[in-house]
Amino acid sequence: MIEDKNEKKTTLSELGEFGLIEHLTANFSIKNKTTILGIGDDAAILDFKDKAVVVSTDLLVEGVHFDLSYMPLKHLGYKAVVVNLSDIYAMNACATQVTVSIAVSNRFGLEALEALYDGIRTAASIYEIDVVGGDTTSSQSGLTISVTAIGEVNASDAVKRSGAKPNDLLVVTGDIGAAYLGFQVLEREKEVFKVNPNNQPDLDAYTYIIERQLKPEARKDIVQLLQDLEVKPTSMIDISDGLSSEIIHLCKQSNVGCDLYEEKIPLDPQVISTCEEFNLDSTTIALSGGEDYELLMTISQEDYPKIKANPNLTVIGYMTDARSGMHLVTRGDEKIPLKAQGWNSLNKD
Amino acid sequence: MIEDKNEKKTTLSELGEFGLIEHLTANFSIKNKTTILGIGDDAAILDFKDKAVVVSTDLLVEGVHFDLSYMPLKHLGYKAVVVNLSDIYAMNACATQVTVSIAVSNRFGLEALEALYDGIRTAASIYEIDVVGGDTTSSQSGLTISVTAIGEVNASDAVKRSGAKPNDLLVVTGDIGAAYLGFQVLEREKEVFKVNPNNQPDLDAYTYIIERQLKPEARKDIVQLLQDLEVKPTSMIDISDGLSSEIIHLCKQSNVGCDLYEEKIPLDPQVISTCEEFNLDSTTIALSGGEDYELLMTISQEDYPKIKANPNLTVIGYMTDARSGMHLVTRGDEKIPLKAQGWNSLNKD
Repeated sequence: MIEDKNEKKTTLSELGEFGLIEHLTANFSIKNKTTILGIGDDAAILDFKDKAVVVSTDLLVEGVHFDLSYMPLKHLGYKAVVVNLSDIYAMNACATQVTVSIAVSNRFGLEALEALYDGIRTAASIYEIDVVGGDTTSSQSGLTISVTAIGEVNASDAVKRSGAKPNDLLVVTGDIGAAYLGFQVLEREKEVFKVNPNNQPDLDAYTYIIERQLKPEARKDIVQLLQDLEVKPTSMIDISDGLSSEIIHLCKQSNVGCDLYEEKIPLDPQVISTCEEFNLDSTTIALSGGEDYELLMTISQEDYPKIKANPNLTVIGYMTDARSGMHLVTRGDEKIPLKAQGWNSLNKD
Repeated sequence: MIEDKNEKKTTLSELGEFGLIEHLTANFSIKNKTTILGIGDDAAILDFKDKAVVVSTDLLVEGVHFDLSYMPLKHLGYKAVVVNLSDIYAMNACATQVTVSIAVSNRFGLEALEALYDGIRTAASIYEIDVVGGDTTSSQSGLTISVTAIGEVNASDAVKRSGAKPNDLLVVTGDIGAAYLGFQVLEREKEVFKVNPNNQPDLDAYTYIIERQLKPEARKDIVQLLQDLEVKPTSMIDISDGLSSEIIHLCKQSNVGCDLYEEKIPLDPQVISTCEEFNLDSTTIALSGGEDYELLMTISQEDYPKIKANPNLTVIGYMTDARSGMHLVTRGDEKIPLKAQGWNSLNKD
């Protein structure tokens, strides 16, 4: 390359579409034996033998799903892969491949895409999946990322949203509400920055919740844990839109009701302290926040002894007859109907 | 619904993200026995038994890949699916499922998305594939469509780009150059319309080339034909970026050269007459035009008797040693190096 001290941004058209994909995926290795052929042909070839295949897809749009003023591109690449893997784990399946397509405006140089793909490669490495395809194109404005995740599962082990039965226990992994609060902190700092660009924010008190927003993890470990515990959930979903919204999905698709106990909802101490600071109700945040990428599942009562000692799994309620409806049982023992107030990209202005 | 005589555009936020996907895919039926579970869970479940799986993905961006001023939304939905299926057929595979994600600005109402999905459903019906997943979200501007196509193939039947050998015949299906010329006609009419919106264009002389641009078809029939003829190509690719660009892909990935004969390139009479009218060289259009979605393949010389009588298949050249390079042999018997001048979305301004 010719040295140019005035220009650090390599324009994408210098490489062209084929050169770009080759360049960005040059050091992506194939790790799964199910991947027969990866990037570089009309299609990838995969072979799952006698296993079933699970497929999920998501589209992330700049200004709707992410804000590059505080989301580093490497984190964005990582998150774009992880949120799709979460859907695969929510089927009780093992994620094996992704395809990643991006549309970028000419505002982005090669170095920006390298950072994005660095995050994609990091996620692929940590979650042991192969990037087997993709498309790179220009856009008229902004960045759009489309990821399709593929996984394998013994057909009889797959867990749908529709299998919950009355009296099943409602179980959630990890803790919830943190990602949404991290978003609130980042939005606040962005406003402060606009007023005073020299201000150095002190974010030490928010490290956990900010990381939950910028670098979420998918619960691959839970699929393994459930196998080790010999528990097959009766239904399962990942928490992307907020706990209440996901509970309603399970209830509707399983034709059951639910009693959710406010006092049982697992919250990180940083969520509680930040809610106090922001004068927000932590239960509302947990119910409606979204982007936690924890797993929400129902299990049969007889499996309770297998899970009760596990710190990763918290029983937060139980399923009822559909006629009983879906309720939050408050700390004051009141029953309030659950409403879907999850994050909905179509309602954003 | 409440009647409102002043408002024909239903805003998307009235339905919400979940309501929207449910509404748009409500009458999509499942046709393939490989589809165990379609839309409505965290992921689709597919079961291909002992067959290999092929996966391909594409992103279509408004203003880059399509212009809604002359592309009806129903056609766009159809085309978005078909161009992805073309990649599956280019592997010599049978397309079985797609996922379709869309990002739309608030410029689009429900009726617009219904038209788009009508085209998607029509393509799914004609090509006998299932729509098993997707995502619907808002965008800050314009329409973006991401399609992932999935197919099945006996692992030993899959045809890559990399298997061509010297002396293999270079074979193309159908005719080429028409889609690009259709695009030129539509662009011209758009300019005329800007000057005089009351002008009614007479497009009778261009019906074939305009249809090739607005409603292309993928060569599913060729995969069946090759099976019937008992011919397995040594390499294959679909023509999306222009004949010369695709030939170069096959040559580079197979490490061979090629002699392409100008006089053998199959052109529709409408391509020839329109090229004359526009004062364009038809060979240049065929080599660089793109979006034909025909299949380009190499076959062993010994298979020639099986294909020679077939009107769908035209021998346009043969493969050589890599050292001989890649050439166009002109009608005047000159040898000109082949250059990739295909359509490249990253070079668009």
